Amino acid sequence: MPRKSLRGELVAAATEQFHTLGYHAAGVKTIADAAHAPKGSFYNHFESKEALAVLALEEYGRTRRIPELLDTSVDPLQRLRAHFQFLREENLAHAFRRGCLVGDLSVEVADSSEPVRAAAGRAFANWRDAIASAVGNAQQAGLVSRAVDADTLARFVLNAWEGTLIAARVERTARPYEAFFTLVFDTLLT
Amino acid sequence: MPRKSLRGELVAAATEQFHTLGYHAAGVKTIADAAHAPKGSFYNHFESKEALAVLALEEYGRTRRIPELLDTSVDPLQRLRAHFQFLREENLAHAFRRGCLVGDLSVEVADSSEPVRAAAGRAFANWRDAIASAVGNAQQAGLVSRAVDADTLARFVLNAWEGTLIAARVERTARPYEAFFTLVFDTLLT
Repeated sequence: MPRKSLRGELVAAATEQFHTLGYHAAGVKTIADAAHAPKGSFYNHFESKEALAVLALEEYGRTRRIPELLDTSVDPLQRLRAHFQFLREENLAHAFRRGCLVGDLSVEVADSSEPVRAAAGRAFANWRDAIASAVGNAQQAGLVSRAVDADTLARFVLNAWEGTLIAARVERTARPYEAFFTLVFDTLLT
Repeated sequence: MPRKSLRGELVAAATEQFHTLGYHAAGVKTIADAAHAPKGSFYNHFESKEALAVLALEEYGRTRRIPELLDTSVDPLQRLRAHFQFLREENLAHAFRRGCLVGDLSVEVADSSEPVRAAAGRAFANWRDAIASAVGNAQQAGLVSRAVDADTLARFVLNAWEGTLIAARVERTARPYEAFFTLVFDTLLT
């Protein structure tokens, strides 16, 4: 496998460090060290840490398995369940540490950085639209009530997921996930 | 009204600064300045910024109108609706800036500080129990289905609320609140 460009290595390292430590706690030096790059090289590639956070959000978005949510060859409720199971397993693999990078950067930086707020908005909108597409497919197939429109359901489910990650991080138990799967798949999406 | 003790002023200032800026971005000097206290006095009152964050979470918890959730003289669904309306209005008054201090400190600090994680856990548990109490009252009164137990419903609703605040902060629109009220009060709590 060819080595990534130094720029690519820096984006990957930043994504990992922001995810593990948070935006303010992950310094430029920490990020450069993780990419085995001299700190001075950082500003050859990026205007600011803020600009790097925008790229990190785009990189992270590509790992959220959005295309799978849109795969109409799979039953829509199975797609949705598999999606959140994947996210749950990813979190369990880190022993309840870390949250969602989009939610985390939103909490820490959205009020103070317009570019980060906008990038987080794009990431959430892209993700929410894919969930709404699967929910819409389930409604068309008669699997989910049409009493509430797919966009509103998708918004609520995604927001509930973001809050569930916070609760799991604080409690370090799977109990918040259990509540999420029970209410989303046995009550809301029926 | 008597002036608060300097210690009390520092806790109040820290609560405000953590809420506005976040944990890492709110420095000890910023907090001391906001309390009109010399920076040096800080460590006479608190062992660390971390210890102050624990006190800030307790202070913030006292402003969440938990007792009102437990007031059995009021219809339980009215109690729940008034609770989330209060929280929504509070957020709107800040033009969608800020989130929930418990959720915010959880995101930013729970992975790196055991005392903050534990304090956030206590704040969430106290809040969730009060929501569960109102939900349980609504179930006993036949206003809400008993298909899912009150604790699971309360967990999910609180988590959905935390995620709703993140979405409102990123979008700066009331659309996430609308989805929350629709799904919680017209679908889940029926």
